[in-house]
Amino acid sequence: MDSGRFAVALLFLFLFSFATGSLSERLIRMPSGDRGASVYSGVLSSRKNELFCESWKFSIETNDVGVWYVVPEKCVSFVQEYMNGERYRSDSEVIADYALKHARTVNIAGDGKDAWIFDIDETLLSNMPYYVNHGYGSEVFDENSFNEWVDLAEAPALPASLRLYTELQQLGFKIFLLTGRSEDQRKSTDKNLQYAGFTNYEKLILRGTSDLGKPATLYKSEKRQELKDDGYRIHGSSGDQWSDLLGFAIGKRSFKLPNPLYYIA
Amino acid sequence: MDSGRFAVALLFLFLFSFATGSLSERLIRMPSGDRGASVYSGVLSSRKNELFCESWKFSIETNDVGVWYVVPEKCVSFVQEYMNGERYRSDSEVIADYALKHARTVNIAGDGKDAWIFDIDETLLSNMPYYVNHGYGSEVFDENSFNEWVDLAEAPALPASLRLYTELQQLGFKIFLLTGRSEDQRKSTDKNLQYAGFTNYEKLILRGTSDLGKPATLYKSEKRQELKDDGYRIHGSSGDQWSDLLGFAIGKRSFKLPNPLYYIA
Repeated sequence: MDSGRFAVALLFLFLFSFATGSLSERLIRMPSGDRGASVYSGVLSSRKNELFCESWKFSIETNDVGVWYVVPEKCVSFVQEYMNGERYRSDSEVIADYALKHARTVNIAGDGKDAWIFDIDETLLSNMPYYVNHGYGSEVFDENSFNEWVDLAEAPALPASLRLYTELQQLGFKIFLLTGRSEDQRKSTDKNLQYAGFTNYEKLILRGTSDLGKPATLYKSEKRQELKDDGYRIHGSSGDQWSDLLGFAIGKRSFKLPNPLYYIA
Repeated sequence: MDSGRFAVALLFLFLFSFATGSLSERLIRMPSGDRGASVYSGVLSSRKNELFCESWKFSIETNDVGVWYVVPEKCVSFVQEYMNGERYRSDSEVIADYALKHARTVNIAGDGKDAWIFDIDETLLSNMPYYVNHGYGSEVFDENSFNEWVDLAEAPALPASLRLYTELQQLGFKIFLLTGRSEDQRKSTDKNLQYAGFTNYEKLILRGTSDLGKPATLYKSEKRQELKDDGYRIHGSSGDQWSDLLGFAIGKRSFKLPNPLYYIA
């Protein structure tokens, strides 16, 4: 093979690897001539967007943003990739590992008072099938359509949380489910939990008539206080919202799960 | 030019762009033959590492991990890249923007009682010059060498925090600095703050004799309570540690800055 043909072969090998590999998007549109500048600035602006969206995500997950209503328009595809890609799964699994590590240090007293609290939505159950059809958090929350989805009782389990839930029960923890869903959603919620594998919980706590309209942090704090008054020791709380974890009567340790789709005050 | 020479030219152009561009590392070591499998598994394992370290970072920044002492070995280079790259800067700037957005909604009463609290280390001042020489959080904290660094009073300002600090003063907030540093570091701390541009603060609060040994969350809560008892309205707290932000007498809003280098309980 002469050097020219060798180079052609190598070139095809390169081009083929770009066309099929993960680098293809960046390389196939490689700038040339006038078009170059705009493509390059497009890449720059996409890089800048990603950097902003990472920082936005940091800021919502640490509660720096406070109340927010919709995902910023320029971060919708970032959220979509995060939720559908490896990162959401990885984050949930690593958090479950840290929760379990803590749980294993607890001396279970055997009096049935060692408790762990789980939130439900985006903690035990994933509403992704709903949000896929509702713009990945880019649309303002619509209670009616969400409640219709809840009534279907078809939300799948978050795999990492199912693993944590099961292992906590094996360790001897009593599981309490504390949700912002209301009493009239008890039947569909319980049906969905059973369907997804969350069985044998100690109690499912939903908003009663007197809880409607209360800020989530207050409602959940009051319910935790009732558990403490009943003698329960809350060793851990798992939730995707800060309103699951802050306030009073908080658990000894809190495990914030990721949720870049929505915020509940 | 015949097609062979054209291909050679193109090939050189490609190779040159890889050797100089950001893609070089991944492409120059492209697998071929037997060596392929191990290089590919190397890429996979590096990808897996990065995924884990992103999740680890999420978990420490949301306090899911609780107390930790050193950066996991496999995440040290991840932390190094995060701190030296664009992300740390971007995160800080976006958080400062959210803090300012909140600050601008505050009605400054004009009685001099509208307050904002800043932590110092990794909030106003960056100790990166120290951590660059101490393994980016991979070494257990060494009080003696860190105190020697503090005495130099050479820590640079975090640019985003300097911007926030300055704009808050212009808006009319009184600035309180609440740090875990001890009273015997007052002189060097003040010198460093002036050097870095943090001037005209209302009060610099350091650990007195009776505060030594107290958990940071308790010490800082007590000091905030004293400010509230003096009639100050704490509209915001900025800190890189949860012990800056949790406990009692907390600010109306909290702004958690990133810090994957160390944890203070």
